[in-house]
This record gives sequence, C-alpha cells and structure tokens, in this order.
Amino acid sequence: MSADQRFNLIATQLGYSFDGEIKIGGNYVPLVRHNDEIYISGQIPRVGDTVVVTGRAGDAVSLTDAQKAAKICAMRALALLQRSIGSLDDIKRLLRMNLYVQCTQDFTQQSEVADGASEVLFFVLGDNGAHTRSSIGVYQLPKNATVELDLIAVV
Amino acid sequence: MSADQRFNLIATQLGYSFDGEIKIGGNYVPLVRHNDEIYISGQIPRVGDTVVVTGRAGDAVSLTDAQKAAKICAMRALALLQRSIGSLDDIKRLLRMNLYVQCTQDFTQQSEVADGASEVLFFVLGDNGAHTRSSIGVYQLPKNATVELDLIAVV
Amino acid sequence: MSADQRFNLIATQLGYSFDGEIKIGGNYVPLVRHNDEIYISGQIPRVGDTVVVTGRAGDAVSLTDAQKAAKICAMRALALLQRSIGSLDDIKRLLRMNLYVQCTQDFTQQSEVADGASEVLFFVLGDNGAHTRSSIGVYQLPKNATVELDLIAVV
Repeated sequence: MSADQRFNLIATQLGYSFDGEIKIGGNYVPLVRHNDEIYISGQIPRVGDTVVVTGRAGDAVSLTDAQKAAKICAMRALALLQRSIGSLDDIKRLLRMNLYVQCTQDFTQQSEVADGASEVLFFVLGDNGAHTRSSIGVYQLPKNATVELDLIAVV
Repeated sequence: MSADQRFNLIATQLGYSFDGEIKIGGNYVPLVRHNDEIYISGQIPRVGDTVVVTGRAGDAVSLTDAQKAAKICAMRALALLQRSIGSLDDIKRLLRMNLYVQCTQDFTQQSEVADGASEVLFFVLGDNGAHTRSSIGVYQLPKNATVELDLIAVV
Repeated sequence: MSADQRFNLIATQLGYSFDGEIKIGGNYVPLVRHNDEIYISGQIPRVGDTVVVTGRAGDAVSLTDAQKAAKICAMRALALLQRSIGSLDDIKRLLRMNLYVQCTQDFTQQSEVADGASEVLFFVLGDNGAHTRSSIGVYQLPKNATVELDLIAVV
C-alpha cells in the first residue's frame, strides 16, 4: 500500500475529505520549499470552512477529541505536501513537528494529544514519518482551535 | 524602490527609528548564519530601551496596537538582517515566522495580529517575503511584551 | 578541558546523572539528523523516571528553580547529542533554542529562565554554543513540567 493510499484510509476513518481547497487565513503561504526542505504553516483542525474541534482541552474538549484535532491537523499538513510534491511516498524524513494545545491550567497531557498526530505521520509515512517534536500547552489559538500543528519535511 | 528604501518608509510610518543598537536580553546572540540560512532570535517590540507595546491583547491592548507590535517586531528582525548582510535586497526567501501573542483567554485573533508582521515582510521584501507562519496565543512574554516574533531567512 | 569534561562538571554541579536512558514520552524520536543538522525533541527536566521541577514559575517555582529546570533540559539535549555523535566537541554551532516556561499570568522573566539553559550551552560548548533563542511563557507543559526546551544543532 502506498503512502497516498494510507492517507486516504485515515481520511475515511476520520470521516473527513481533504480533497477541497486547504484554506489558510491571513497574508502568508501554506508552504515554502528550500532545497530539499519544506516548511508548512501552522495548521488548525479546519475542514472546508469549519474549524471542527474548538475549545479548551481538559474542559470542553476531551483528550480523545483533542487527539482527533491533532490527527486532522496532521492530515492537512500531509494534504499540503501531497499537492506540492505529487506523492507522499516522496517524503524522505520529517525534521520537526510543533504541536500547540489550547488547554486548561491543569491539563498536562499535551504529549498524549500530540501522539494523535504522530500516529498519523507514522502510519502514512512509515519509517520516513519519524520526527522530533515539541508539545506545548497554550492559552489560545486562532479561531478558538483546540490544536495547532506545524511541520518541516524533507523530500 | 529597493527593499531598504521600503524598510525606511515603514519605519517612518511607524514613527520609530531602527538605527540604534538592537538590544537583546540575556546570554545568546541575535542571529546565527548557517550556509544560506539565517536564524533570528525572538524579537519583542522594543525600540531603544523601551518595550513600546506591553500587556494582553483582547484586554489592555487593542487588535490595532497588537498589530503595531507585530510590525515593530518584524522591523527589528529586518534591521538585524540588514546589518548582517548589508542590503535587504539580498534576502531570497523566508522559511518560517513564529508569532506569539500575549492574550486573554477569549482572544482568538492571533492570525490577524500576525498579519501586521506579514504585511511588513511582504511590503519590504516583495515576493521574497513570502513565508510560512504559526500564530500562537500565549500566557506571558518577556518584559510583558504583547508580541514576540522569530524568523528564519534565506540569503 | 573538552566539551565532554565540561558536560560532566555541570552534571556534578546539578547533582544529577545523565548516564541512564533518556526517556521521552509518546510516539516520536529524540533526535533527527539531516545533513549536518540535528533536530532535538522538546526536553522537560526529567531525570530517570522523575520530572524534577514541576509547577508554575512565579508561584510554586522560584526563578532559581526554573533556571535549574532550564539547565537540566539543556543537559538532556546535550546528552542526546553526545550519544548520537560521540563527542560534544564535534558540535559546530547551534541554530535555535526554544524555551517554554509554564508561568503565572504576571511572570515576565522568561528570558532570565532561558539564561540558565544558555549558560550551560556556552559553558559546555564554548563559542560553538552561541545560539539564537525564543523564550515564551506558556499555560501548561507535559507532565506539569516547569520548562520545555528544544534545539537545533550543527555538527
């Protein structure tokens, strides 16, 4: 099974399509390539026009829903890569994933939330999906998103 | 008009000079170059000895003032690049801008704040100013700054 | 004195050993190398199985203890580099350190906390330890850690 087929499998499991336009807000670009590195802008769990997971992990948002948000962010990042380079099988390596979680003052499971995104990256990309990461609990995120994720990939 | 002339135009519009020493606190360096990449340390809206925009966006600080803070941070980053490489026309590309906003728990316009910085980067650098970015709402920042911005540039 | 000897000196001063397994949580890797760059995952002040500095800077945690947490994070990052490349004398340069501090809403000494980590990097690596950095005050961190630190090194 190719990385692109595994991507489609996860999309089906999540119940969302990542075929449409990947909207981003503001005055910037979704990705920048420099030599063999691709930087991807911070992704929130937006599908089409809707941010599908909003609010604070540990309060309105359960760990499971926060993990789902992280998975959607990872899928958006992969979708952007796929459109840019053609096939996800051409990703050689990931350098960094940053995962920001909007949370309550006592919520300390940022790593567990990030595991949702890491699982998607490993499942879709296999060994090429290995990555370093930082998981941070923050006060707010754009559009009240529960999670924001950015990525650096090598192709 | 050169990128350096556009830089001076924005400085005039903001009403601040970026000619003096660009002070940073602590035991680190303002920028590090590796091959054609330059990493720039996190910049707060300090002009001379004064942090000119402090406090929490969404409360004491309006969206407009937070955007102004973001513009000043972007100008500081550009000023550091200009001193390091001579002319801003030699910047080929930006890889990443991270923008941290000290905000209230309900303030969700981090992207709109970041637009202030992105506009400066696009105006001064033209197409070379295209960049990926992540916009994050945080609990506090050094010296009670409203905004902190860091950058990776390619020369 | 080699960088590795200076590393051991700081470990003795802190009263912790960094000889054991460097545990990380979750589904990712501690470091990724690409060409001459090594990305290191976010480190919290964990020694063995215990996170030794937890809680909020400015409240339960003093500035001195937060700085100690930052030093431990820096030592963990160096320990990971040492195991990966053999000797810390082979580190040529650091590109970026990000330092996240779990803090109260009025705690504005994130730079002073980061100085703890920066001092360790400069002491152990000498001029090669010069780095850019961003210091951010955040709402929570994994396992209630007071500090999280990530790093990009050039070898």
